Amino acid sequence: MSDLIYPAKIPEPALRRLPWYLSYVKLLKSQGETIVSSTRIAKKIDVSASQIAKDLSYVDISGKTRVGYDIDDLINVLESFLGFTKTHRAVVFGVGSLGGALLSDSGLEQFGLKIIAGFDLNPAIVNHTIHGIPVFHSNEFTERNREIKGEIGVLTVPPGVAQEVSDYMIRGGVKGIWNFTPFRIRVPEGIVLQNTSLYAHLAVMFNRLNG
Amino acid sequence: MSDLIYPAKIPEPALRRLPWYLSYVKLLKSQGETIVSSTRIAKKIDVSASQIAKDLSYVDISGKTRVGYDIDDLINVLESFLGFTKTHRAVVFGVGSLGGALLSDSGLEQFGLKIIAGFDLNPAIVNHTIHGIPVFHSNEFTERNREIKGEIGVLTVPPGVAQEVSDYMIRGGVKGIWNFTPFRIRVPEGIVLQNTSLYAHLAVMFNRLNG
Repeated sequence: MSDLIYPAKIPEPALRRLPWYLSYVKLLKSQGETIVSSTRIAKKIDVSASQIAKDLSYVDISGKTRVGYDIDDLINVLESFLGFTKTHRAVVFGVGSLGGALLSDSGLEQFGLKIIAGFDLNPAIVNHTIHGIPVFHSNEFTERNREIKGEIGVLTVPPGVAQEVSDYMIRGGVKGIWNFTPFRIRVPEGIVLQNTSLYAHLAVMFNRLNG
Repeated sequence: MSDLIYPAKIPEPALRRLPWYLSYVKLLKSQGETIVSSTRIAKKIDVSASQIAKDLSYVDISGKTRVGYDIDDLINVLESFLGFTKTHRAVVFGVGSLGGALLSDSGLEQFGLKIIAGFDLNPAIVNHTIHGIPVFHSNEFTERNREIKGEIGVLTVPPGVAQEVSDYMIRGGVKGIWNFTPFRIRVPEGIVLQNTSLYAHLAVMFNRLNG
């Protein structure tokens, strides 16, 4: 099995759908099932069977015609492909309410994200730990990160300093920024950016509720 | 000013961009600015000036040609339009690590989401409070919600029960589901669904980091 070489770079929309399939086949496994077809996944999830088969063609698994995929294989291959079985080291910048909450969310580690440190300016939390994770002064980041080697920077600072802190994390060695602020930051080429805008999701929810 | 009647239903992509503009103009305000043009917003955010002007045409504000928008007005109108100035009552189902973290995130309230209760099966937390928010047994939801009137249900249960719990919350009166599980749930017509898939974002980040 080739762990690292796949036929083509998977498009982002396909990549975003894979966790849905994984989640559903894990449910089937817990119900004692062993085989699943793309048609069956399609019935449960609002994606066509042909799209599912196409999405799964990017990962290293083959289904048997008229039978389907072996569920154990599919789970293993998807978890590995999605990076959930590897450990990715992350630092959290801005240990306010959301940042502190993420430090407390041990569930992320099951999906491959290990938060190794928080950074903040607030003297009330600097040099303390939250759920066993140390919080350091932001000024120490560059030096600390030489040792702790955070690869992903989780951005939960006030929006007004989001760009500045993102630049600072990148200078300190992070390769990916997970932006939780509503600020639209920019990153240099070669740096991976993912935006999770809770507030945009809230805005859509509120607007549609009132519509 | 009409608070509730707008010319047309705003498309979701436009709605999702509005918080970016809000965030940027709040930054400008904090720097002492009073007027901003769509061209200036466009320079900072990766959206064209004409798209920004079009997006802002859905909200009740008009810019002056060659001058721009009054920043205070724009902030007020956007916050109101996005629903951030109203209180929306929410319940959290599944007070595990992520659910508990959301109960602890007081920042959501500034954006109009007030979490009034958590529901769970775990005897260790049922009938306790987290950050002052009561956690009740899930079985009590229907009865409790007649009194507490949660309008939005935040879904942070294990994926295997996501659909079932979503159905249960809707029967108990919630009108919107904010789904944090990787499970692709379905809701009846008239119910608002927003998916925030942290794991899908992680998957994209991991894949691109290794690519």
